[in-house]
Amino acid sequence: MNTTRERILDRGLDLMSKSGTAGVTLGLLAGNSGMSKSGLFAHFGSKEEVQVCLLERAAEVAAAHVVTPAMHAPEGLPRLEALVHNWLGWSTRAGLSGGCPVAAALFELDDAEGPVRDRVLEMETSWRGLLAQLVRQAIEHGHLRNDLDVDQFVFELCGIYLSHHAFLRFVRDRRANARAHAALWSLIDRARPARGRAQAPRRAKTKKMA
Amino acid sequence: MNTTRERILDRGLDLMSKSGTAGVTLGLLAGNSGMSKSGLFAHFGSKEEVQVCLLERAAEVAAAHVVTPAMHAPEGLPRLEALVHNWLGWSTRAGLSGGCPVAAALFELDDAEGPVRDRVLEMETSWRGLLAQLVRQAIEHGHLRNDLDVDQFVFELCGIYLSHHAFLRFVRDRRANARAHAALWSLIDRARPARGRAQAPRRAKTKKMA
Repeated sequence: MNTTRERILDRGLDLMSKSGTAGVTLGLLAGNSGMSKSGLFAHFGSKEEVQVCLLERAAEVAAAHVVTPAMHAPEGLPRLEALVHNWLGWSTRAGLSGGCPVAAALFELDDAEGPVRDRVLEMETSWRGLLAQLVRQAIEHGHLRNDLDVDQFVFELCGIYLSHHAFLRFVRDRRANARAHAALWSLIDRARPARGRAQAPRRAKTKKMA
Repeated sequence: MNTTRERILDRGLDLMSKSGTAGVTLGLLAGNSGMSKSGLFAHFGSKEEVQVCLLERAAEVAAAHVVTPAMHAPEGLPRLEALVHNWLGWSTRAGLSGGCPVAAALFELDDAEGPVRDRVLEMETSWRGLLAQLVRQAIEHGHLRNDLDVDQFVFELCGIYLSHHAFLRFVRDRRANARAHAALWSLIDRARPARGRAQAPRRAKTKKMA
């Protein structure tokens, strides 16, 4: 294992979580890692290569803190819920000083072209693929309804994540967690088969009238 | 009217919409506006002052393209819906090359401190205040239910906006508009008084059984 490279990646990921991909310049990363820019070039050929390697590192860290622990939950809705709970605010629990580098890159690199944007798009597509897979498993287990629009569910789930990120980290609103969990609960409840849905007051009233 | 200043602000706002606040350096802005850096300093004292002025400009442009036309819609739910329709994808309709500078700043400046972040926070707070005001008007008109959690509604609405921005601009998914409008329709439908709600198949069945 190349420990110098590991140290550079750890410092760089922390920097990226605070300042985005544009914030990780070779000069700043060299300074943060206690080495010269030419020393840094021995490990990475270009700024883009550093940024792509940092994104790979972010994916490894997220896998360890978000995905792996969720896989211990029973397949179906419990696993999906565990994944989303681990996802919300994961960067802080993973020891990073800043926010989610991928969420930030979705807004930083939307008008960019090149290898860094391409890597973020692959990561984002793969992540949505995992969410969709767990939603489909929850349908197969009968925890969510058969006619659920899986892609629409994932679109709305991503919205809850992004709104939570903005309210928690930018607005610094301490109700962000409660708001995100209420939205998540509502999204899941609407996706349940009829027999499994929570009885909201209005529905209970309809039943009573029957 | 200072036309040079206006031209700098228009070029700068377009640059900010593509590259975020960090992407608007004095050197790049001077080059884009066809003037020297020292010429730029005659109009703005610092990089932060340029960025704050560009955010003010973004607010003016958004007001003209999003807020003002929505105010012609009847008060209540029609006005709220008009505002949200104008909000989704507004930057392109306003002629900007990139995305929403405020959405990008929520993820770029979450770990920053200083006048630029402060101005974005004021704009974001004011925008959420307007959304909440229109939701409350819709409640007063009986278009939305009395017991609606207005702040939760706004949190979820912001999630739809951010997810739409990411899917449309970063993922470049042409279904982004349809996904956002489906999510919006669902959010509004859940917020309607019982008598005004759409009859989903499951609810219709319950009624038939009654």
